Amino acid sequence: MVAAAPPPAPIPETTVPETAPPPHSLFARIRLASIFDVNHIQKLIHQMAVYERLNHQFQATDASLAATLFPENPPHLFTSFTVFILEVSPNPFPSFPSTAAQQINTKFSPIFKTFNLDFPIEDLEKETFRSMNENDVVVAGFVLFFPHYSTFLAKPGFYIENLFVREPYRKKGFGRLLFKGVATQAAKMGYGRVEWVVLDWNVNAIQFYEQMGAQILPDYQFCRLTGEALQTFAHLT
Amino acid sequence: MVAAAPPPAPIPETTVPETAPPPHSLFARIRLASIFDVNHIQKLIHQMAVYERLNHQFQATDASLAATLFPENPPHLFTSFTVFILEVSPNPFPSFPSTAAQQINTKFSPIFKTFNLDFPIEDLEKETFRSMNENDVVVAGFVLFFPHYSTFLAKPGFYIENLFVREPYRKKGFGRLLFKGVATQAAKMGYGRVEWVVLDWNVNAIQFYEQMGAQILPDYQFCRLTGEALQTFAHLT
Repeated sequence: MVAAAPPPAPIPETTVPETAPPPHSLFARIRLASIFDVNHIQKLIHQMAVYERLNHQFQATDASLAATLFPENPPHLFTSFTVFILEVSPNPFPSFPSTAAQQINTKFSPIFKTFNLDFPIEDLEKETFRSMNENDVVVAGFVLFFPHYSTFLAKPGFYIENLFVREPYRKKGFGRLLFKGVATQAAKMGYGRVEWVVLDWNVNAIQFYEQMGAQILPDYQFCRLTGEALQTFAHLT
Repeated sequence: MVAAAPPPAPIPETTVPETAPPPHSLFARIRLASIFDVNHIQKLIHQMAVYERLNHQFQATDASLAATLFPENPPHLFTSFTVFILEVSPNPFPSFPSTAAQQINTKFSPIFKTFNLDFPIEDLEKETFRSMNENDVVVAGFVLFFPHYSTFLAKPGFYIENLFVREPYRKKGFGRLLFKGVATQAAKMGYGRVEWVVLDWNVNAIQFYEQMGAQILPDYQFCRLTGEALQTFAHLT
């Protein structure tokens, strides 16, 4: 006769920490941009140009962005230039988004994530970047991407033209969340690669990308034909 | 009374050179690719992968290229992945192209150029790359490009993913003609930039691009998230 098995050990109760949960929860949402975001997008691009020390190249206006990013007959979702907006709020986002957001997000379910921060974020530009529809929601960043193609893989991928998080929200995981939004969409669509360029002096960014699992390809040189040189070359006989 | 003006000097006759015109004319045409070019495109990409010492990355098959480059419901011209084919012939191209070529080129008028060469080109792979429709026409190269976007300019541009000319046809101006095809299309559409990357050891190519008026941007580093790293990152919680 086999001795009765000892009674199973009691399942330990979940340990409730002595300290209260971190008091500074910030709720983040990534959603598709619409034409109503153009003014915020223009301001974000300008801040990015200043950060990248390339503001001499900056020419984007609300009107030019609206015409090129949100044409009257938009192509199918993710087949052309696409913008995701990163929003933050001290309050949880409603599960049913506001009408404007809902209209454009019928084909893309927004991504939500809660960030527990040690300190509250002081955002001096809260008013400028306040969402039109939801009072406590602030635009904190964006990513612009579009399909590209690898002939070697014979597969599309996504090329990230810009990814930007406003200064008060940096180094907290928001940039990673934007990257993840694009990478997840690429994986969903069976795409082969996500690619982008970084300025070589931006050591923090390079380190961040390597931690994400990205390869930096130092033997690739970026070439650009633009402005007068483009016109001249295009019109040569 | 003013002395009569001297009679005008006789207009010199056009000097006919003693030597005959260069005997080796080669006629070139750049046209839009169609699904019927897939086999040639696949072979060209493979040759390019070998040339770029990246053939370990090469995975393209006729089927995967057909599905991704020539989908059943093609997007509008130049709004997605686009391939131009470079063809050469010892005889002038007909002004009315063959039916197959005509069907796909109703919206893009092919570009023609005559090259006068010092020596005839010996093409050992003539048979492999012979056009299906026109007996004396041989595929000599291709360029694959698609729209990209500059947020600073708030304008689209074209990104050239690949441009390749087969070995016997190099250093004669055919690559430049392919580039010009893309640059001219960009200028026509009011686009702001044509961009691409080059491998840093390819000194000949870099020199060629600089002669075209392109800037090489040495402070841009190319980043890539692909394969397992992409899947892992995309599926992180």
